[in-house]
Amino acid sequence: MTGHLTVLTTTDSREAALALARSPVEARVAACAQADGPVTSVYRWEGEIRTDEEWRVLFKTPAARYEAPEAHLRAAHAYDTPEIIAADITHGSDAYLTWLATETTSTAGPLSD
Amino acid sequence: MTGHLTVLTTTDSREAALALARSPVEARVAACAQADGPVTSVYRWEGEIRTDEEWRVLFKTPAARYEAPEAHLRAAHAYDTPEIIAADITHGSDAYLTWLATETTSTAGPLSD
Amino acid sequence: MTGHLTVLTTTDSREAALALARSPVEARVAACAQADGPVTSVYRWEGEIRTDEEWRVLFKTPAARYEAPEAHLRAAHAYDTPEIIAADITHGSDAYLTWLATETTSTAGPLSD
Repeated sequence: MTGHLTVLTTTDSREAALALARSPVEARVAACAQADGPVTSVYRWEGEIRTDEEWRVLFKTPAARYEAPEAHLRAAHAYDTPEIIAADITHGSDAYLTWLATETTSTAGPLSD
Repeated sequence: MTGHLTVLTTTDSREAALALARSPVEARVAACAQADGPVTSVYRWEGEIRTDEEWRVLFKTPAARYEAPEAHLRAAHAYDTPEIIAADITHGSDAYLTWLATETTSTAGPLSD
Repeated sequence: MTGHLTVLTTTDSREAALALARSPVEARVAACAQADGPVTSVYRWEGEIRTDEEWRVLFKTPAARYEAPEAHLRAAHAYDTPEIIAADITHGSDAYLTWLATETTSTAGPLSD
C-alpha cells in the first residue's frame, strides 16, 4: 500500500464533470483529477434497464483522509446517490507519490504577529 | 474493503461492448456497467506487436459472488480468452454501496398459493 | 490477490501515449497496454489550477516485477515526474491470468554450442 487512493465519480454532462474535477483540487482534498467521457452507463431503474451517456472523474487522494473528498463530492454533486468509490494505489513512483502528498497538505499562510 | 469489486472486460466493437454491458445487469450478477472506447490495445500475437481498437466495459459486483459475473462474461464473450480482471473497491459512499448490494439481490416474485 | 497489477501512466499526446504503450510490451515488462484519451486533467501548478488534455495508458504486469515497468516508463517518459501508479488485480479469469504471466516471461533463444 502507498497510503493513496483513486476515487471515481460519474455525472451526466461534460460541464458537470469538469466542475466536479476542479472543486476538490481547489479545496486540496484531492491532488488532481482526470475527467473522461462520454461513457455509456447501463443500470436498472424502476424495473427497466436504462442506458445513459455519462462522464467520469478520477481523483487521487490520501487514504487517511478519504472522508474529506467523499463529503466534498456528495455536497457538490447533483445526483441524490452519486457513484463515489475508491481503490488502493498499491504501488507507485516515489516522486509522483511525494507530489500527491504535497498537493493535499494545506499550506499555512504567513504568520501574522 | 467494502465487499464490492470493479470487473473489467474488453471487446472489439461498440455494439459488442453494449451487449456485454447489458447482459450481466439484466441477470443481476452486476449492479451496473460503463462502456468506454475506442481505446487502442497493444499486445503481442504470434511474435509480433499488434495494435487494435477495442472497447472496455467496467462492472460493479459483490466480491462474494465474483464467479457469477465471470462465468456470465465468459459465456457471453466472443473471444476465446477474454480479459476479465477485477479490483477491490476499498472505500465508497454508504448510500451508493447499499444501492450496489440491492441491485444484485434477486427479488423473489409474488408468492402464489 | 492474483499476483498481477494494473499500472497507469499519463502523457500529453496520442502519439506519446502509443509509444509509451508499445515499449514495455516489446520489452516484455508488461503483457499488454490500452491507451485512451483525450481526458481532461485538472491539477495545481505554481499556485494556479490548470486544465490540460492528456492521454492515459493502462498496462498489466506481474506484481513481483513492478520495478521493471516503472523503471522502463520513467526512462521512456518525457515528463520529469510522470504519473506512474498501480493497483492490485484481486480476481481474474484463470485463462487470462495465465496469458498475462506467459507474456512477461522471457523466452530464451535457441542455445548455440
